[in-house]
Amino acid sequence: MSIFNVNPVTVDDYRRRALCRLPRFLFDYLDGGANAEATLAANVNDFDRFRLKQRVMRNVDQVDTATTLAGFDAAMPVALAPVGMAGMYARRGETQGARAADSQGIPFTCSTLGICSVEEITAATGKPIWFQLYMLRDREVIKSLLKRAEAAGVTTLVFTVDLPLPGMRLRDYRNGMIGTNLRSKLSKAAQLTTSPGWIFDVGIKGKPHTIGNLSDVVPDPDDLNEYKAFIDSQFDSSVTWDDIAWLRSIWPGKLIIKGVMEVEDAQAAVNAGADGLVVSNHGGRQLDSVASGIVKLPAIAEAVGDQCEIYLDGGIRNGIDVIKAVALGANGVLIGRPWIYALAAAGEQGVKDLLGTFQSEIRTGMALMGVNNLSELTPELVERV
Amino acid sequence: MSIFNVNPVTVDDYRRRALCRLPRFLFDYLDGGANAEATLAANVNDFDRFRLKQRVMRNVDQVDTATTLAGFDAAMPVALAPVGMAGMYARRGETQGARAADSQGIPFTCSTLGICSVEEITAATGKPIWFQLYMLRDREVIKSLLKRAEAAGVTTLVFTVDLPLPGMRLRDYRNGMIGTNLRSKLSKAAQLTTSPGWIFDVGIKGKPHTIGNLSDVVPDPDDLNEYKAFIDSQFDSSVTWDDIAWLRSIWPGKLIIKGVMEVEDAQAAVNAGADGLVVSNHGGRQLDSVASGIVKLPAIAEAVGDQCEIYLDGGIRNGIDVIKAVALGANGVLIGRPWIYALAAAGEQGVKDLLGTFQSEIRTGMALMGVNNLSELTPELVERV
Amino acid sequence: MSIFNVNPVTVDDYRRRALCRLPRFLFDYLDGGANAEATLAANVNDFDRFRLKQRVMRNVDQVDTATTLAGFDAAMPVALAPVGMAGMYARRGETQGARAADSQGIPFTCSTLGICSVEEITAATGKPIWFQLYMLRDREVIKSLLKRAEAAGVTTLVFTVDLPLPGMRLRDYRNGMIGTNLRSKLSKAAQLTTSPGWIFDVGIKGKPHTIGNLSDVVPDPDDLNEYKAFIDSQFDSSVTWDDIAWLRSIWPGKLIIKGVMEVEDAQAAVNAGADGLVVSNHGGRQLDSVASGIVKLPAIAEAVGDQCEIYLDGGIRNGIDVIKAVALGANGVLIGRPWIYALAAAGEQGVKDLLGTFQSEIRTGMALMGVNNLSELTPELVERV
Amino acid sequence: MSIFNVNPVTVDDYRRRALCRLPRFLFDYLDGGANAEATLAANVNDFDRFRLKQRVMRNVDQVDTATTLAGFDAAMPVALAPVGMAGMYARRGETQGARAADSQGIPFTCSTLGICSVEEITAATGKPIWFQLYMLRDREVIKSLLKRAEAAGVTTLVFTVDLPLPGMRLRDYRNGMIGTNLRSKLSKAAQLTTSPGWIFDVGIKGKPHTIGNLSDVVPDPDDLNEYKAFIDSQFDSSVTWDDIAWLRSIWPGKLIIKGVMEVEDAQAAVNAGADGLVVSNHGGRQLDSVASGIVKLPAIAEAVGDQCEIYLDGGIRNGIDVIKAVALGANGVLIGRPWIYALAAAGEQGVKDLLGTFQSEIRTGMALMGVNNLSELTPELVERV
Ligand SMILES: Cc1cc2nc3c(=O)[nH]c(=O)nc-3n(C[C@H](O)[C@H](O)[C@H](O)COP(=O)(O)O)c2cc1C
Ligand SMILES: Cc1cc2nc3c(=O)[nH]c(=O)nc-3n(C[C@H](O)[C@H](O)[C@H](O)COP(=O)(O)O)c2cc1C
Ligand SMILES: Cc1cc2nc3c(=O)[nH]c(=O)nc-3n(C[C@H](O)[C@H](O)[C@H](O)COP(=O)(O)O)c2cc1C
Ligand SMILES: Cc1cc2nc3c(=O)[nH]c(=O)nc-3n(C[C@H](O)[C@H](O)[C@H](O)COP(=O)(O)O)c2cc1C
Repeated sequence: MSIFNVNPVTVDDYRRRALCRLPRFLFDYLDGGANAEATLAANVNDFDRFRLKQRVMRNVDQVDTATTLAGFDAAMPVALAPVGMAGMYARRGETQGARAADSQGIPFTCSTLGICSVEEITAATGKPIWFQLYMLRDREVIKSLLKRAEAAGVTTLVFTVDLPLPGMRLRDYRNGMIGTNLRSKLSKAAQLTTSPGWIFDVGIKGKPHTIGNLSDVVPDPDDLNEYKAFIDSQFDSSVTWDDIAWLRSIWPGKLIIKGVMEVEDAQAAVNAGADGLVVSNHGGRQLDSVASGIVKLPAIAEAVGDQCEIYLDGGIRNGIDVIKAVALGANGVLIGRPWIYALAAAGEQGVKDLLGTFQSEIRTGMALMGVNNLSELTPELVERV
Repeated sequence: MSIFNVNPVTVDDYRRRALCRLPRFLFDYLDGGANAEATLAANVNDFDRFRLKQRVMRNVDQVDTATTLAGFDAAMPVALAPVGMAGMYARRGETQGARAADSQGIPFTCSTLGICSVEEITAATGKPIWFQLYMLRDREVIKSLLKRAEAAGVTTLVFTVDLPLPGMRLRDYRNGMIGTNLRSKLSKAAQLTTSPGWIFDVGIKGKPHTIGNLSDVVPDPDDLNEYKAFIDSQFDSSVTWDDIAWLRSIWPGKLIIKGVMEVEDAQAAVNAGADGLVVSNHGGRQLDSVASGIVKLPAIAEAVGDQCEIYLDGGIRNGIDVIKAVALGANGVLIGRPWIYALAAAGEQGVKDLLGTFQSEIRTGMALMGVNNLSELTPELVERV
Repeated sequence: MSIFNVNPVTVDDYRRRALCRLPRFLFDYLDGGANAEATLAANVNDFDRFRLKQRVMRNVDQVDTATTLAGFDAAMPVALAPVGMAGMYARRGETQGARAADSQGIPFTCSTLGICSVEEITAATGKPIWFQLYMLRDREVIKSLLKRAEAAGVTTLVFTVDLPLPGMRLRDYRNGMIGTNLRSKLSKAAQLTTSPGWIFDVGIKGKPHTIGNLSDVVPDPDDLNEYKAFIDSQFDSSVTWDDIAWLRSIWPGKLIIKGVMEVEDAQAAVNAGADGLVVSNHGGRQLDSVASGIVKLPAIAEAVGDQCEIYLDGGIRNGIDVIKAVALGANGVLIGRPWIYALAAAGEQGVKDLLGTFQSEIRTGMALMGVNNLSELTPELVERV
Repeated sequence: MSIFNVNPVTVDDYRRRALCRLPRFLFDYLDGGANAEATLAANVNDFDRFRLKQRVMRNVDQVDTATTLAGFDAAMPVALAPVGMAGMYARRGETQGARAADSQGIPFTCSTLGICSVEEITAATGKPIWFQLYMLRDREVIKSLLKRAEAAGVTTLVFTVDLPLPGMRLRDYRNGMIGTNLRSKLSKAAQLTTSPGWIFDVGIKGKPHTIGNLSDVVPDPDDLNEYKAFIDSQFDSSVTWDDIAWLRSIWPGKLIIKGVMEVEDAQAAVNAGADGLVVSNHGGRQLDSVASGIVKLPAIAEAVGDQCEIYLDGGIRNGIDVIKAVALGANGVLIGRPWIYALAAAGEQGVKDLLGTFQSEIRTGMALMGVNNLSELTPELVERV
């Protein structure tokens, strides 16, 4: 980094540092999206289609960004999204992320496919976290996972519905991450040799690289091809809203359905007993060319916003984006790549700093819009370009 | 290619490899379009003006991409478009393309102006193919070509109507491909010396470079200027819909009219007895500044979609584009440049791999849209941006 | 130029060659526009907002691009626009341009401010040309210029109304072209030393560099600062439509008013007795941020198209642009920079070749639109994007 | 600068020179905006959404750009905006700016946070200037500042309302300008060593670097961190329109409210007794993602334009932009960054030259639009793209 860029501040600052530090295939797995990455781009760019109103002389001495997210008393309307294999981006990455979230007073979501198990994460902070789940063909595994989660103190289940099968993230094929031919193997080897810092810190000291929550069912999740084989065999594309009803019946805590983009599906989620839903296209990693979440949010908030909590994820890169989402009807947002970039670039402290910047941006933005509480952020304060 | 780009996946991956491998004038002949190439760009970019809907929890365990294209039982709604001189891009290129199409279960279209004759191509696979025809001034040549095609097992005639005279592809003048002045000759020589792999594989081992279907009428089609002379002398710009009626009367198989962009012309094609039509601007190689096909498709499908089959070509670069075309009313699509890029870059295997990717993209996309069959892809699942 | 770019074809090909050959301040004077050059860009880009319709099977064996422009039997609806100081871009540049126009059968317009006088130009071809005039404070000079023009065989007067005072072309200040400070002088000297070909061919052999039509009134027009002084002193910003009526009364030939952008002004021009008008913003060299001509054309053609001839200039770069202008109501177009780029790059032959390409593009475009005559090019064949 | 760029003309020309000359953190403080800088970009780009009408033959021999701005007889509808710490960009920068404004006949606005005090500035020209004020917690300081201003001959108070707290200008964190960690300190040192000209001229000879108007309340404003501490402690985010009424009651001169973007707030400003208001988002330095001022101007001018004077600032980069603002309802505009770029690049003479160019651009633009007085610039002469 140049002398003009000494302190990372924005998500992009952390992203550039992560690019330098990580083996390329890991960076690409994080950074990329499905197919032509049209939705990935739209997620970020579509926030520019909304403008905020500046209002002055309104006494904004008491700006308060606090709110309740699925029962969690949060310092701001932001949660860390579930990200599989976060532990490959920093040593025991999930625990670092959970500690950063805790210190900034926001929820952390543990992915089904994290390196650290739900128990390891909750042990790190001693606080309740959220737990994300994919449907697996073997329903007994589901039941036992929910048991473990409940025992570990999980209060909220985030159930992901937009992955009946894995999306086609073409970078993973292009760079040889997925692939067993010679070219792929040589490429991966070459990429590793150019990341000595990562090799020592994560590759060696960050072991074991098993998928904590599934270490009993996946033999060697360190081998990315076995990991893919597992997904291919266990992911269940026959799931329907009836399965959600079943899930509802066996899970006592809060239930948030993640991956809803249409009003019709939002209504179905409510009918199946969801306490909340996440308007999400999985960060542009599943169906490419679907609209961005921010564009879909207003209609869904309008339709079911009084029946359940509404979250948004995808493309949120700063506190101004958070304000837009809340003003358009979201109770809160989830951020995925941002916290992993910060984690890969600067570890727990990086995530903490980034969240601190989000908090300041939300507070400052609210003050400049002339509002003191999140509930004053209404659609009238947003203009479409 | 860098260590981050070891396996070609997208059309653009193959395109870059073709650029490295081919003499520039051949690459430009393939890659370029007419005049300022505005339509060429619109063909690709306009797909971005349509978005797909993500729908979840619908049981997509039985996604099926199969369909019937002009009587051909196809594994997916895609056919290889007729491309003149494909045999200049790889050794006996048309046979390689036909074998790849066959192995992936889709139709191959033999161009009037291919290097390999229709007989050579059908011999390679033993399967029926489609045959593309331009109107020639000498109607006896037409009759004899149709006889040969029928005898070789062609079931479907694709008759191209958007080439009453050749479009102005300016790259061919700029790089000296067309031109007999000294500069042009020196340029072509220089371009060839930088493509040793191509010279051996195609230039020497891929002979003869005659236009197979016309080898009796064009003396030496290896000389690109004679080839142009032939087009100039034989292409018949006085053709009208009456000639199509005549063609209909002498051809017993399926008849598809390729190159229709207006509803009025689509109706005329149906009236002349067409079984299908291709909404096409010839890949942006004829009238520059005409709209893209995808933008024109909905009105044509609406007007005559119940009277004949509708195909689309131009700018289709992945399976997501195919889904959009089908949802907007197409029975199937044709792809032109994509398969030639793959052919030039990696031969038959390249075409096969690319088609495999298209197939996966269509299947995955359908699953993520919550549909199991192509017939469920309706205009309601597409949004305009 | 690389081996992929051996024959110049498009306007941009010639532009790049002109950039290499000319002293930079002369290139900038030609290439630049007023202020932030917003209109300059819009002139070119706005053609992209219109699309042409492809229509097939219509018998286009008799495509004819001929028309009559202000009484001139023209091979296509194109004329060379008046360009001041063309003789600085090639040796006796106006005569070369006039010969090229003559050989391609289109009108040439002599600028008030050309290097060659009207007599020198008509002597070169022996054919009638058009003559462009600015209003000068000294009306006697006007009268004597019109006498000379008539005597030289000029049939059509193009009177320019959009230059009550010179526009602010900032490149001319930035590069030192206009300016007498030391930096400006050194800069011009440095620019000249890097253009040896131009120095010999134009700088030395192309003399005298007087403004032919005004050589009796401007002492030394070779000195660009004196030239500017002349403009400043003679340009008459008090001109009104009454002066046009006066002009009409003393000029027996055709009168075309150049520089009309609003319907109200078009009506005034007709009322003052104009036989034609040019929808023009002076190639983006006068009022910056005014709309492009192509966007303004339809309303003006609609309002007064049946009372006078309508021309368009500004941003026309190929035959497809010409087709759009004609379809939207123009009798013909003028091209300015294109012919000077070609002249500077390749002299008379360059201009001839470029015009030949325009002719082919118009003919081919018409055939692919299914029309045989210019009169069939109607607004229905154009779509707005 | 190259030999093609010897005389700076546009704002961007000066900007590039300032970039070369200044320590990077000072350049960034000037050049940057809040958060993702979306509003910063919109301020400049949105002027492109408006087009001017070219009208001809209207006798424009008497174009007059003069007007009255809050009682000041101005040569053109432009004033220099208040810019904090201008004296860090050139030796005693505020006095140089004031002299340049005076010589071009336009108002200069002294910032609360300037290096030079209001007395030093008025002493330099002997002419009345405008004085900008932020609300401070300590109202006694306000009263004494207003006393000093009145005594120094200030006629107009510009009271800024869009800064209840400082915006988040992230470049200042990224480049270490704000920050006391080692990296930040080393970075600043490195940046200084690459700006020897600035160090001598401003860093050494331009002292003292105290904030003149507050030198009694801020101990050492040369230390940027103390300066920030002062803002944090004194800026009063509890201000309301009642405080404006109080201000109105104690200030006898003209009162202009700066930082209004909504009609409702404009009405409130009028109700509180304002003589004028500035439609402004503080140059994109406060609420990021708010609309540009030029887009907001028409509605505000329509609503309260007959009750008070209307000014616009943000993104004005040339005289054409000024014409647009006036035609859309502004009495005049303020320019911020433009004059500081010119000041940093070329001192007082730079500011004078730039203002001269603005003046010529306004005059030339008016002539080409066919108007002689600012009052003829009406919304009908502007088109939206
Ligand atoms: C590398 C990566 C892994 C992810 N893994 C999961 C996962 O295991 N479970 C899940 O529900 N979502 C997963 N997501 C999606 C995120 O939860 C979230 O929806 C998405 O990242 C939001 O978009 P953003 O990255 O633009 O903030 C993953 C996203 C990324 C980038
Ligand atoms: C190099 C080349 C040669 C072509 N030759 C023919 C041909 O001989 N006959 C024909 O009907 N179309 C021909 N086409 C047009 C294609 O069939 C098809 O319409 C077009 O390529 C579709 O656009 P795409 O390349 O963007 O997929 C050709 C296209 C290319 C690029
Ligand atoms: C270098 C230059 C000199 C010009 N001189 C004249 C002139 O003397 N008289 C005139 O009426 N127009 C003049 N024009 C304007 C042209 O006639 C014409 O309106 C304009 O160039 C059309 O735009 P285009 O260059 O994009 O084709 C000049 C244009 C250029 C570029
Ligand atoms: C470096 C800098 C310092 C500024 N300081 C002040 C200030 O002290 N008081 C104020 O009211 N506005 C201040 N502004 C805002 C300007 O007065 C003005 O609103 C803004 O610069 C207009 O946008 P422009 O820079 O695009 O012309 C400042 C702007 C800049 C760029």
